[in-house]
Amino acid sequence: MTIEVEYRFPPQIDPQKQANIIAIGQTAGTWDARFAHLEGKFKQHLGEVGKIITDPDGYSTATIYFPEINVENDLASLLTMIFGKYSMAGAGKIVGVQLPKNYGTKPKFGITGIREKLGVFHRPLIMAIFKPALGLSAADHGAILAEVAMAGLDIIKDDEILPDLDVAPTGDRLAVCRQVKAAVKAKTGRTVLYAVNVTGRADTLLAKARLLVEAGANALLLNVLTYGFSVLEALAADPVINVPIFAHPAFAGAMCAAPHTGLSYSVVLGTLMAHGGADAVLYPAHYGSLPFSPTEERKIRDILRSRNVFPVPSAGIHPGIVPQVLSDYGTEVILNAGTGIMEHPDGRGAGVKAFFEALETLEQGNSFELENLPPGALRRAREKWG
Amino acid sequence: MTIEVEYRFPPQIDPQKQANIIAIGQTAGTWDARFAHLEGKFKQHLGEVGKIITDPDGYSTATIYFPEINVENDLASLLTMIFGKYSMAGAGKIVGVQLPKNYGTKPKFGITGIREKLGVFHRPLIMAIFKPALGLSAADHGAILAEVAMAGLDIIKDDEILPDLDVAPTGDRLAVCRQVKAAVKAKTGRTVLYAVNVTGRADTLLAKARLLVEAGANALLLNVLTYGFSVLEALAADPVINVPIFAHPAFAGAMCAAPHTGLSYSVVLGTLMAHGGADAVLYPAHYGSLPFSPTEERKIRDILRSRNVFPVPSAGIHPGIVPQVLSDYGTEVILNAGTGIMEHPDGRGAGVKAFFEALETLEQGNSFELENLPPGALRRAREKWG
Repeated sequence: MTIEVEYRFPPQIDPQKQANIIAIGQTAGTWDARFAHLEGKFKQHLGEVGKIITDPDGYSTATIYFPEINVENDLASLLTMIFGKYSMAGAGKIVGVQLPKNYGTKPKFGITGIREKLGVFHRPLIMAIFKPALGLSAADHGAILAEVAMAGLDIIKDDEILPDLDVAPTGDRLAVCRQVKAAVKAKTGRTVLYAVNVTGRADTLLAKARLLVEAGANALLLNVLTYGFSVLEALAADPVINVPIFAHPAFAGAMCAAPHTGLSYSVVLGTLMAHGGADAVLYPAHYGSLPFSPTEERKIRDILRSRNVFPVPSAGIHPGIVPQVLSDYGTEVILNAGTGIMEHPDGRGAGVKAFFEALETLEQGNSFELENLPPGALRRAREKWG
Repeated sequence: MTIEVEYRFPPQIDPQKQANIIAIGQTAGTWDARFAHLEGKFKQHLGEVGKIITDPDGYSTATIYFPEINVENDLASLLTMIFGKYSMAGAGKIVGVQLPKNYGTKPKFGITGIREKLGVFHRPLIMAIFKPALGLSAADHGAILAEVAMAGLDIIKDDEILPDLDVAPTGDRLAVCRQVKAAVKAKTGRTVLYAVNVTGRADTLLAKARLLVEAGANALLLNVLTYGFSVLEALAADPVINVPIFAHPAFAGAMCAAPHTGLSYSVVLGTLMAHGGADAVLYPAHYGSLPFSPTEERKIRDILRSRNVFPVPSAGIHPGIVPQVLSDYGTEVILNAGTGIMEHPDGRGAGVKAFFEALETLEQGNSFELENLPPGALRRAREKWG
């Protein structure tokens, strides 16, 4: 099996020369006559240059095939091989990675598993983020969760910048929110997932994740790119972690935002996350203010779904954007709103209800125009956000 | 204590506006009147905008002060806070980070500890890399090590792209090389460090590192940026890992090479590595073909040394460059050569000897000009590499 990687070079770069440097330099490296007797052994490790296509704008894309035997079936050794030293060589961006089907780590739940946990099969899932990000106590978290969960919310997550702080320790947040989830279950029969932000040094993080799950966490949130893909894969492979893992894109811009270096967002947030064992992946939607390309967003969506991973577009999501999201995504999507729920003029519960009213309005084929909406949460949301 | 971060923006960006977005958006986030009674709690988490300096070329640098209470005294939560979501916001690059002195993880050895292990105190250390990178058996590694170690080498490391492969399992490489090290010790009294590449999912990597140390590894190599800073910190904090950790810069270009996004090389390979517990840090020197700025290189050197971390400039290092390196670095440096040792025309042993001849030539104040050099390894090296 081979690993196929596409590198894009700007016009001033000789793609053939760079492709040769990558195919040899990132595999066997240099060798000389002293190793002539070992030539067969080296050859099996060598990368191969595939097609090189130059666009009318002068940009070239070179495909390199890497032998799978050079790496350990994980993302870290893969990244070291395909972009380790070469990432420092100048202009050249990884814009596509094709991995063997079984490469990496499989999600334990993915789209189907998350839907089964929730018992919701035929509509987009509605997800909220605890806001403000820092400064709330565990009790504040519980109060917020009670409000949105009783209004019908499917999933809530910690803000990604909230780690395990003395002012609201992760274990305390979980303990309070677990009681709220239980109360909602008792009253409505519904399950609510709370993706707890799991943090720490790799060793403490892995241990803490187990403790959290044993203490009743029914989902985890991981800042995959600041903690490391190796941590995501460890969590995904751990049988004790029998809950879905939500992957957050924090720090993705550091490696994806540049035009001529780094990797495409669709490689990092699509391919790598999907082969790293994430069950759901958050990423900036082009609906919001972040400069995110709809093309990359579509690629991420399709790559994730092809591995049964839930796409979670996550910027600029408010009730008024639902028709657009449904048109772009259909129902196999998690609508993740921060302020779009938390800052609804009539409160967070109304923020959640506005999303469900939006889904119902569309399902029944009713008009979504503001002037045609009946009084209620959706109308109020549209008055605020459009 | 505060964490001080400098963000640089290109001319078309309003630095004041962006600084405010960072100071609020990456800390407490948005809040509203409902939380007025909690204002005091939020305020302690808020970032503060410091000075904003605009250069004559129109580039601006804004300093933001972040409260240390927002993070967990580790690098992953730090990166999530200072650049998580904001990394995806467009042009804006982190060019400086000042951390409280005790922030993060301290190296167990550093410059002084590595020198003590080797019993070498007053000259640059000489380090080699096993080459070719892939395709050698464990026995091949042993044969190479015997040659260079007997010639006086201080440190050798695996190539960073060599993980734990069936063709040369990490444990086998260590077992063979450990015997060679023991033989060298018995014959010459000298210690040679072999930085074994430690790889795997976070859980298996941490366990494997302990096994390797228990099996006699006297140094480790870690691709910090592909495995995660959280893994470096876990190794550095683990009392069982009582050997120096050599940090490799593989993948650094993905987050540092772009002019307007990501982070400076000196932040990632200097500040973050030094506060992550690395004992020695490899990085591309400007002597080689990689497009590396001498200014960034000097910053890395100074930041690392300020935390007792060994700088290991690592590209284009061959015996002929020694006068330049000594002038740039003095003696507190590890000279790390791959082909500059392995491809010496008279063999690897001569490659090592050429470095020592270079040091001696300079120490004795003799001429370094090719025509004045006596016959020997250095002269042969200079004939080949200049």
